[in-house]
Amino acid sequence: MQGSTNADKPLLQALAGQQQTVPPIWLMRQAGRYLPEYRAVRQEAGSFLDLCYTPAAATEVTLQPVRRFGMDAAILFSDILVVPHALGQEVGFVEGEGPKLAPVRHASDLAALSVDRLAGHMAPVYETVMRVAADLPRDAALIGFAGAPWTVATYMVEGGTSRTFERVRTFALGDEAGFGALIALLVDATTRYLIAQVDAGAEALQLFDSWAGVLPEGQFNKWVIAPTAEIVRGVRAVHPEVPIIGFPRGAGARYEGYASATGVTALALDETVSLDEAVRLQARRPVQGNLDPMAVLLGGRVMEESVAALLEALAHGPYVFNLGHGINKETPPDHVETLVGLIRDGGANRRG
Amino acid sequence: MQGSTNADKPLLQALAGQQQTVPPIWLMRQAGRYLPEYRAVRQEAGSFLDLCYTPAAATEVTLQPVRRFGMDAAILFSDILVVPHALGQEVGFVEGEGPKLAPVRHASDLAALSVDRLAGHMAPVYETVMRVAADLPRDAALIGFAGAPWTVATYMVEGGTSRTFERVRTFALGDEAGFGALIALLVDATTRYLIAQVDAGAEALQLFDSWAGVLPEGQFNKWVIAPTAEIVRGVRAVHPEVPIIGFPRGAGARYEGYASATGVTALALDETVSLDEAVRLQARRPVQGNLDPMAVLLGGRVMEESVAALLEALAHGPYVFNLGHGINKETPPDHVETLVGLIRDGGANRRG
Repeated sequence: MQGSTNADKPLLQALAGQQQTVPPIWLMRQAGRYLPEYRAVRQEAGSFLDLCYTPAAATEVTLQPVRRFGMDAAILFSDILVVPHALGQEVGFVEGEGPKLAPVRHASDLAALSVDRLAGHMAPVYETVMRVAADLPRDAALIGFAGAPWTVATYMVEGGTSRTFERVRTFALGDEAGFGALIALLVDATTRYLIAQVDAGAEALQLFDSWAGVLPEGQFNKWVIAPTAEIVRGVRAVHPEVPIIGFPRGAGARYEGYASATGVTALALDETVSLDEAVRLQARRPVQGNLDPMAVLLGGRVMEESVAALLEALAHGPYVFNLGHGINKETPPDHVETLVGLIRDGGANRRG
Repeated sequence: MQGSTNADKPLLQALAGQQQTVPPIWLMRQAGRYLPEYRAVRQEAGSFLDLCYTPAAATEVTLQPVRRFGMDAAILFSDILVVPHALGQEVGFVEGEGPKLAPVRHASDLAALSVDRLAGHMAPVYETVMRVAADLPRDAALIGFAGAPWTVATYMVEGGTSRTFERVRTFALGDEAGFGALIALLVDATTRYLIAQVDAGAEALQLFDSWAGVLPEGQFNKWVIAPTAEIVRGVRAVHPEVPIIGFPRGAGARYEGYASATGVTALALDETVSLDEAVRLQARRPVQGNLDPMAVLLGGRVMEESVAALLEALAHGPYVFNLGHGINKETPPDHVETLVGLIRDGGANRRG
C-alpha cells in the first residue's frame, strides 16, 4: 500500500462525502474483453475461471485499465460466481453462452454446500488483491467486490442467466425457510469473503445486485435489503471504515429505501435513474454512475452530451463517475480514452 | 353490443374513476396456454399467427376465460407483433423460442415497410373483435390492445426477444432521425389499428410497453412517452370517450411522469410497484394490477395474503384487479378460480 492515505486517492475522498472539482472515474467491467491486452492474457490463461484463480494473470488484467487510461480505481478482476463455486456448486462458463451451474432447486440441495472450503478456495483471489495493492499507483484505489446474495442466488437456482427468473422466484416465494437458508449461507460466505478482501488490501467494496429490480416490494425487502444490511453490518464489525458501494440495479423508485435501510456508504446508479432522482439521492450520500454504456459504445456527440449532462447534474456533490452497467465488449478503447479526457477536461473547465 | 351501457360493466365503471365494492378482474394473457381448452383450439388452428388471424378460433379463445371464470373483461386474443407483420416485416413464432423477425437494423430497411397494407391485413382481427363483442355477456367489457411503439420496435430491430437490447438501443441513440422514422411509422399504424378496434366494438384499450423499463430518462421521454402521447391523442380525436390503459412495464419511479405526460386514462402496474406507490398513483387516476404472477402459480396462502394486501391498499379507489405481468403458462386453472373467488368474497366481506 506504499503508505498512501485517503488524501491521495480521489475515489476514497468522494466515497467519504467530499465533492471534487474533477470526479474520480472507473468503469464497471473496465478490465475486460473490449481491451486487446485483456484478450491476450485471457487466451493464455485457459478458462475464464482459471483466469480468476491465477494471481499473476488476474493482477495483470486488473491493472491494465489503470495503466492504459489512468483510472482512479482498479476493481479486482473476478466474478460473482466464485462464491457459489467456493461453496461447492459446479460452475462453468460456456463461451458465448454465459455461466452454467448445476442448479440448486430445493432446500435439500443445500446440504452439498458449505462455507468451510471458502478460505482455501479464495486464497488465490486474496493473493491477487495483495499483488494489485502493491502495484497500484499511489493515487488509485483498489475496489473489492462480491455479488449480493439475491443476485448470486438467481444464478445458483436458475443454473445460469435467466429472462424470467421463474425458478428462483417460486423457490423464494414458495419456501421462505428453504430459500432463506440459501440466502443465509450466502450472507455468511459473502461477509467473510469481503472482510478477507479488505484484509488483503481492498480499500473500498462494491456489492453487485444486478437482478434486484425483478422483485416485488415484500420480496425486495426480504431478499435484497435484509441480506445486504446484514453483510454491511458484518463487514463493518471488522472494518468499520471501509466504504461500501451498493448497486441494486433496476431498483427504480426503491433506491432511496435500499440506501437508508442497508446503510451502504454510496449508491451505484444504473442508467435508468433520472438525473433529478440522482441529485436527490446524492443529497444523502455519495453516488456513482450512471452513464449509458451505449453512449460509450457509440462515442462522439452522443457520449459528449451525456457526459456533460451528468457532470452538470452531479459534480456539485460527492460523485464517482462510472457507467450505469458494465462496459459493452464491442466498445472501442479510444472511446474510453476520450471519455476520461472529457471528465478531466470538464473538471478543468469548471475549475477555470 | 346488445345495448349494454357502462353502467352494466364494472370494468368501464372502474376506468371511469368509480370505486367499486368488488373490483372488476381480468388477467393479462388470461386466454392462453395454461387453459386446456385453449391448447385444444391452438392445436387445431395451426401456427400461432394462424390462430390470431382466424376469427372463429380467436373469438373462441378470447371468450374462454370469461366463460370459465366469469372475468369482467375479455381481451382480444392477438399478439403485439401483428403490427410489424401488417407493415410487411417477416414474423414467425418458433415453438419454445418465441418470435423471430427478419430484423430492421437501419433506416434504409424501412422502405420495405408500409402502412398501406394495414387495413386489409387486420380485417380478420377486426372481425374477431366484432364477433367477441356480439357474444360477450352484457356485464363483461371488451378490451382491445396493441404494443406500444418502443416495445414493438425492440422486436423489429433485435429480430426477437432480447436480454440486452443493444441493437435497438444503439439504433435509437445513434440515429435519432432513422429510429424516429420507425417510431413514427409505428405511431401511425398503431393509432389506426386501435381506432379500428374501437370501431369494431372494443370498449377499452391497453397499450403494452413491456420493455419501457430498459431506457434511460432522455430515451424514455423520446421513445416511450412521446409516441404514447401521440397515439392517445390520435385515438381520442376519433373516439374521445374510450378509456386507454397504459402499461409501461418496469417504469419504476417514472410511472407518474408517464401517466401525466401521455394522458392515459389508467395505469397498469407491474409487480415491482410498491403498494404505497400504487396508492399514490391511484390518487390521480384508476390503477390496474399488480399481483405477482408467481403468487398465482403457487396458489395457497401466498396467493391469499398477496390478494388481501392488494385489496386492503387499492380497493378504496378506482381499481381493476389484475396481475403485474402475463399469467404463467404452468398456472393451474383452479388457482385462477380461487383467485376470482378471493376478489369477489373479499369484496362481499368488505361490503358486510
